[in-house]
Amino acid sequence: MASKMRAARAEQDDPLPSWNNGSAKRSILEFVEAVTDESGADHVPAAARIAVFDNDGTLWCEQPLYIQLAFALDQVKALAREHPDWRAKQPFKAVLEDDRQALGAAGVKGILELVAATHSGMTTDEFERTGKDWFATAQHPRFNRPYMDLAYQPMRELLEHLRANGFKTFIVSGGGIEFMRVVAERLYGIAPDQVIGSSGKTRYELRNGAPAIVRLPELDFFDDKEGKPVAIQKFIGQRPLAAFGNSDGDQQMLQWTAAGPGRRLALLVDHTDAAREFDYRVSPMGRLDLALAEAHERGWTVVSMKDDWKRIFAFETRN
Amino acid sequence: MASKMRAARAEQDDPLPSWNNGSAKRSILEFVEAVTDESGADHVPAAARIAVFDNDGTLWCEQPLYIQLAFALDQVKALAREHPDWRAKQPFKAVLEDDRQALGAAGVKGILELVAATHSGMTTDEFERTGKDWFATAQHPRFNRPYMDLAYQPMRELLEHLRANGFKTFIVSGGGIEFMRVVAERLYGIAPDQVIGSSGKTRYELRNGAPAIVRLPELDFFDDKEGKPVAIQKFIGQRPLAAFGNSDGDQQMLQWTAAGPGRRLALLVDHTDAAREFDYRVSPMGRLDLALAEAHERGWTVVSMKDDWKRIFAFETRN
Repeated sequence: MASKMRAARAEQDDPLPSWNNGSAKRSILEFVEAVTDESGADHVPAAARIAVFDNDGTLWCEQPLYIQLAFALDQVKALAREHPDWRAKQPFKAVLEDDRQALGAAGVKGILELVAATHSGMTTDEFERTGKDWFATAQHPRFNRPYMDLAYQPMRELLEHLRANGFKTFIVSGGGIEFMRVVAERLYGIAPDQVIGSSGKTRYELRNGAPAIVRLPELDFFDDKEGKPVAIQKFIGQRPLAAFGNSDGDQQMLQWTAAGPGRRLALLVDHTDAAREFDYRVSPMGRLDLALAEAHERGWTVVSMKDDWKRIFAFETRN
Repeated sequence: MASKMRAARAEQDDPLPSWNNGSAKRSILEFVEAVTDESGADHVPAAARIAVFDNDGTLWCEQPLYIQLAFALDQVKALAREHPDWRAKQPFKAVLEDDRQALGAAGVKGILELVAATHSGMTTDEFERTGKDWFATAQHPRFNRPYMDLAYQPMRELLEHLRANGFKTFIVSGGGIEFMRVVAERLYGIAPDQVIGSSGKTRYELRNGAPAIVRLPELDFFDDKEGKPVAIQKFIGQRPLAAFGNSDGDQQMLQWTAAGPGRRLALLVDHTDAAREFDYRVSPMGRLDLALAEAHERGWTVVSMKDDWKRIFAFETRN
């Protein structure tokens, strides 16, 4: 009984209770201590404590489909009645008939077409409402839970720990900026203005005298690879002190962060846990190859989800 | 003596000591009180307390030249040795010969050419350094003071008062985003990630293995008129509660803000003081015409610098 209480107390003092003790957890805690220690050589003033996080596969689950793509597929079905031509037109036909093979054949071009069709034409206010409604009912196909439950608990603790130490935390993701904003505050405690992502063009207009911002079916910016440091500079205006990712799309963001002067933290999440989440060695998504090679070369921190995370989702029973 | 002490104490309690008592000051104080009063009908949670400020002519002096244009002209002179062709080529020749007539004839197109030539080709780090160096020595031609002294003291008090009441304060300006970031923290207490402005395209690249972000001579986004609500939605992701501007370029930003549900504040600064600053009725800059008409029609707050501001710059002697 007493030892159980001691364990509970130790966990209370531990800012990262869902992390197993190991080199990854240690590298995070030592980094935060070093840059916040006012008398230390690595001290960094709070104004420069910027941390950037990829979202899909880094903060929440991206398998078997990006969550935003699951939303787009559901929207195609919801909007089909208004678009009778979709019944005969790919890639919409594939979605309406749940034809995975035809959908796969449509490739990235097909996906962008689905996203454009379901993410434009409405005002930004309307899109936000549609996203909220979807998150209230949609469920993950494997875990049979709302997508809101699919955030990684260890990363939520990490976000909290960084903010408790004066960091500003930002999402910098290939996902749609407005889609993530629907849930970022509730999921991660990240305000809309600290969410950066891919965006479509928009237009300001007066509709019967009332101002509206309308979403257009045209890509404005694709926030991936070289686009991530570019977006960081545009939105944040200073080089981050710490960066967190999980795929080759995050390599340049980690590079840019790690190459700054003084102590930095660059961290990759490696999906190694087929039992509790997904093992990317046997999956086609989230390619982690070039970034992993650079991580080993430069000594970036690599997190094995299987070994470094005590639990992955908050809904798991604690051991 | 006692009355003097009482006056000093009253001023200490006044969050806006550089504002004369009048309807403009009252509308600001009442708005802030209304949206922060938890038991009131107009209460707004802190997360939605977003305030956006134009910069040129709203937060600092834009006469007789935009400060960024003064920087560009100085840079043309500083870089002339590396560009011998400029001696014979407009609009550069006009700058090098201080030929105001030829410069005027070059128009907006000429100005954009000067800005592109002096704002691109270098890395973002190098540009920031150049900007810092320039602000350390350059002086305003009329006031003979560093440009850092040319911020409006009443607006700095207003920024401070809003932040003290849980607001996040953003700049949303037609000026260059990276140029303003050089000074926004020191001048206004506004961090780089809360500065929004016009931007040029950039490219991420490795220079001898070292990552760099290089500024390209191509416009990315012009943050004026309809562009302002568009940029607000992209960078901030929610509609502001309060907006502050001084020209027709701010009309759509104020419209978008004022049209939101619940209590809002839309405010225009009218340049009416030829003695202490500039009277725009006799100047070609900062056209305030359509926005002023809409302000009167909709009951937005209009500040007369001459009547509403006790002092304009911090360096003025207090009365």
